[in-house]
Amino acid sequence: MIHVTIWNEFVHEREQNNLGELIRQFYPIGIHAYLRDALKADDLDIRIASLDEAEQGLPADILNSTDVLVWWGHCAHDKVDNALIDRIQLRVQAGMGLIVLHSGHYSKVFRRMMGTSCRLRWREVGEKERLWVVAGNHPITQGVPETFTLPHSEMYGEPFDIPDDGKLILASWFEGGNVFRSGVTFYRDNGKIFYFSPGHETYPIYHDPNVQRVIANAIRWAAPIQIMPPRTTPRPKADEPISTPNPLAKHDTASIHQKA
Amino acid sequence: MIHVTIWNEFVHEREQNNLGELIRQFYPIGIHAYLRDALKADDLDIRIASLDEAEQGLPADILNSTDVLVWWGHCAHDKVDNALIDRIQLRVQAGMGLIVLHSGHYSKVFRRMMGTSCRLRWREVGEKERLWVVAGNHPITQGVPETFTLPHSEMYGEPFDIPDDGKLILASWFEGGNVFRSGVTFYRDNGKIFYFSPGHETYPIYHDPNVQRVIANAIRWAAPIQIMPPRTTPRPKADEPISTPNPLAKHDTASIHQKA
Amino acid sequence: MIHVTIWNEFVHEREQNNLGELIRQFYPIGIHAYLRDALKADDLDIRIASLDEAEQGLPADILNSTDVLVWWGHCAHDKVDNALIDRIQLRVQAGMGLIVLHSGHYSKVFRRMMGTSCRLRWREVGEKERLWVVAGNHPITQGVPETFTLPHSEMYGEPFDIPDDGKLILASWFEGGNVFRSGVTFYRDNGKIFYFSPGHETYPIYHDPNVQRVIANAIRWAAPIQIMPPRTTPRPKADEPISTPNPLAKHDTASIHQKA
Amino acid sequence: MIHVTIWNEFVHEREQNNLGELIRQFYPIGIHAYLRDALKADDLDIRIASLDEAEQGLPADILNSTDVLVWWGHCAHDKVDNALIDRIQLRVQAGMGLIVLHSGHYSKVFRRMMGTSCRLRWREVGEKERLWVVAGNHPITQGVPETFTLPHSEMYGEPFDIPDDGKLILASWFEGGNVFRSGVTFYRDNGKIFYFSPGHETYPIYHDPNVQRVIANAIRWAAPIQIMPPRTTPRPKADEPISTPNPLAKHDTASIHQKA
Repeated sequence: MIHVTIWNEFVHEREQNNLGELIRQFYPIGIHAYLRDALKADDLDIRIASLDEAEQGLPADILNSTDVLVWWGHCAHDKVDNALIDRIQLRVQAGMGLIVLHSGHYSKVFRRMMGTSCRLRWREVGEKERLWVVAGNHPITQGVPETFTLPHSEMYGEPFDIPDDGKLILASWFEGGNVFRSGVTFYRDNGKIFYFSPGHETYPIYHDPNVQRVIANAIRWAAPIQIMPPRTTPRPKADEPISTPNPLAKHDTASIHQKA
Repeated sequence: MIHVTIWNEFVHEREQNNLGELIRQFYPIGIHAYLRDALKADDLDIRIASLDEAEQGLPADILNSTDVLVWWGHCAHDKVDNALIDRIQLRVQAGMGLIVLHSGHYSKVFRRMMGTSCRLRWREVGEKERLWVVAGNHPITQGVPETFTLPHSEMYGEPFDIPDDGKLILASWFEGGNVFRSGVTFYRDNGKIFYFSPGHETYPIYHDPNVQRVIANAIRWAAPIQIMPPRTTPRPKADEPISTPNPLAKHDTASIHQKA
Repeated sequence: MIHVTIWNEFVHEREQNNLGELIRQFYPIGIHAYLRDALKADDLDIRIASLDEAEQGLPADILNSTDVLVWWGHCAHDKVDNALIDRIQLRVQAGMGLIVLHSGHYSKVFRRMMGTSCRLRWREVGEKERLWVVAGNHPITQGVPETFTLPHSEMYGEPFDIPDDGKLILASWFEGGNVFRSGVTFYRDNGKIFYFSPGHETYPIYHDPNVQRVIANAIRWAAPIQIMPPRTTPRPKADEPISTPNPLAKHDTASIHQKA
Repeated sequence: MIHVTIWNEFVHEREQNNLGELIRQFYPIGIHAYLRDALKADDLDIRIASLDEAEQGLPADILNSTDVLVWWGHCAHDKVDNALIDRIQLRVQAGMGLIVLHSGHYSKVFRRMMGTSCRLRWREVGEKERLWVVAGNHPITQGVPETFTLPHSEMYGEPFDIPDDGKLILASWFEGGNVFRSGVTFYRDNGKIFYFSPGHETYPIYHDPNVQRVIANAIRWAAPIQIMPPRTTPRPKADEPISTPNPLAKHDTASIHQKA
């Protein structure tokens, strides 16, 4: 059983304006709740969490029992506490999978894990997006056709500032002339990360069965082999004999060499 | 002319104890000052900076006129302001080179740029370290012999938690039985990063001509082609005609889509 | 069930001299037969094959029903037909896993898959080798201790000419002062490749339970998700409407554009 | 001075049919000769070579004095001798740069250097191609606008079977709905490789100043730091003392351990 937590800032869906009404047509109780229902499966135990909950939805007991965290955020990135980002980063380092969706490219957690600006080009006019499977034998693309379209989407385009070890899984074409690395995997410490760009809130993109399939596959791919306890990093006893002790180290230096 | 700033936390060298006395034998006015003198060259304009100075040594005018930042820190990592790390990260993203030395593997700035824990194994008994050039035709290893030794060194050993796109330039063997990726390059946004592990403060490692050569080469390699202004990321006007406007987007969504 | 074929040039083990006698103490009927027995498991269907057999041990029906090919060769690399290498390469591209052992670093098949010289430093004096797990949460290292030794081994050392996308899984330390990337993975088309350096024929290295565990894990890791049929590469019909036909292409160019 | 050799199979341009006539409008004396003239610069010494010449245009004295080899081929890939590919591969391993253009993706030399099938999707209907600079601070994209178009081009689309360490420099959008990694760099041994996809013979693509700029920049980027002599790979004398000689190795094994 894979323990999944789908986190959503859950702001747009509750706005009291025309836009909020539009979004609620597709996601009446939130993107996170919609995805929970759409991804329901016997091997997945899916919880939802949101920014307005206690400890921003991810108290220690929830986070530390999460195998794969799915992240959706957009207008409230700055409201997420840095201390929570620290804790999520530690959990990914220990082995938790992380699936970052759409505007989450600019979330604190994705930028923390990448080290880069994660900037991209974008435009919202509702143009058509066409996705291509680049890595056809990767677990994430099993059951996904070589190409499929989203009739209306927000354009995300290159240049996309991510590290060079991102493995390209899917790529996107936009009617307005742009291209994008829309599905990319990364390994960070013991954790696996997948960024997947489709998913703008004002279109029913998460209703698309291919999009759902990609996310479902990614969750299973990102599930940890095991959660590793934090390493005790010193290795004070040498494994092989040392014939060159330091003649200068006449003092005890142990006390000043403390590392986390 | 490459504008270099060598930053040092500058704490160990001023400690009033036996250890401080030992370190001052090698670095009487600080590691940063020693390196400035050792690396002196016609094409390098080298400044030094330290934690105790105004704005922790890196006010905007200094940082923004730095082409390559060299970083040495150990016991005061936590004292560096997060806001300074934010500014350094932005500068690297714009194109500034970053050379991280020795215990700087665990600095806030290196961890920020990597996204990983940057943990490693270590031991300090003054054992011998032997370095190997792995990438013999890389600019960083020009003029460096295929193998050379440091008679006394702190052991840094695998596993070293860094991202997979680190290109291996030098590797180290330790008498006590460990191995380490001691010289590794990364590309992040418009900036280049080099991590180089030799350099413990209680040994005269920066007096070694091969170590100096590696650092000097790395500075020239990491110097930016150009500093890129922050990208204006939206691209609102489509480059190609769009025949699929969003029938649902009857409202003006521009005002709510603000990204940095 | 994973269909494994262990291929061995099977020359050293049959030499009629002192060396052959020594090797037969450890591998009386060949390294391939020894590994077959050592790796026996319910989920593995293991066959052996050798250079002296019909079609050099890998006729089409054998190769095309192999999920993972394990390769050991040393003094007879040049005797392997280029046409066989072509067929193996096609099979890897379709999804077959490839485990290359020890001196196989210099085999035609590994060099073909890498594109590089695959050169390394080496020395045979029977020195101690110490291995380190670098990727502790990778499927290949499950159940393997963080470090373990081989009392007598052939030294393989850096620089090792392999492409930059090799993910480091294990690294080796040698008593004589060398270091080596001893376990490295690669993705090539639909196939996975693992190179693992321990395994010199004059020492009982494949008797070591950790070495066996690494190879057994690697076989399961490299097993294909699915074997992909060769792609039909043209995509003559456009997926989106084209308003810019080529005014110059008044002729039929289809007949001259033939690609495999 | 960088010594450049532009190799062209030089077949299409001499065909005695309508197609040949069309191509000669753009390249009257061959693509190689056209590029030689277009790329003329003080720091470049450019020679041309073609398949019909002695030793297929690349005798030892030419190849061994070439710093950067530019390759264009299409319908005659199979006519290039394997022995020549062996020699070119050795030269790249020693440090020669290699620029592979357009249909050269399927040349023997590119496939040899990659180890993969190098397959891609394609279509020739003269549709528009739009290129995007992904790596704006890379030497290859200096002076190139963020996006530019080719009014008529052959479509090359994903999936493109290349190794994972290809660094994405430019990406392409096609009117018919496809995307492609159109500019990608690789490091192999001591050599640098750049693949650049625009350049179909029936359109005047090499007349485009941006295309010329990319190729000119790539030549300078790929020029070797130095050509490295083949490494003498054994390292028989240990660098550190060995206390664990092999008690079994009572014989002289040196004679049987011969590696290239």
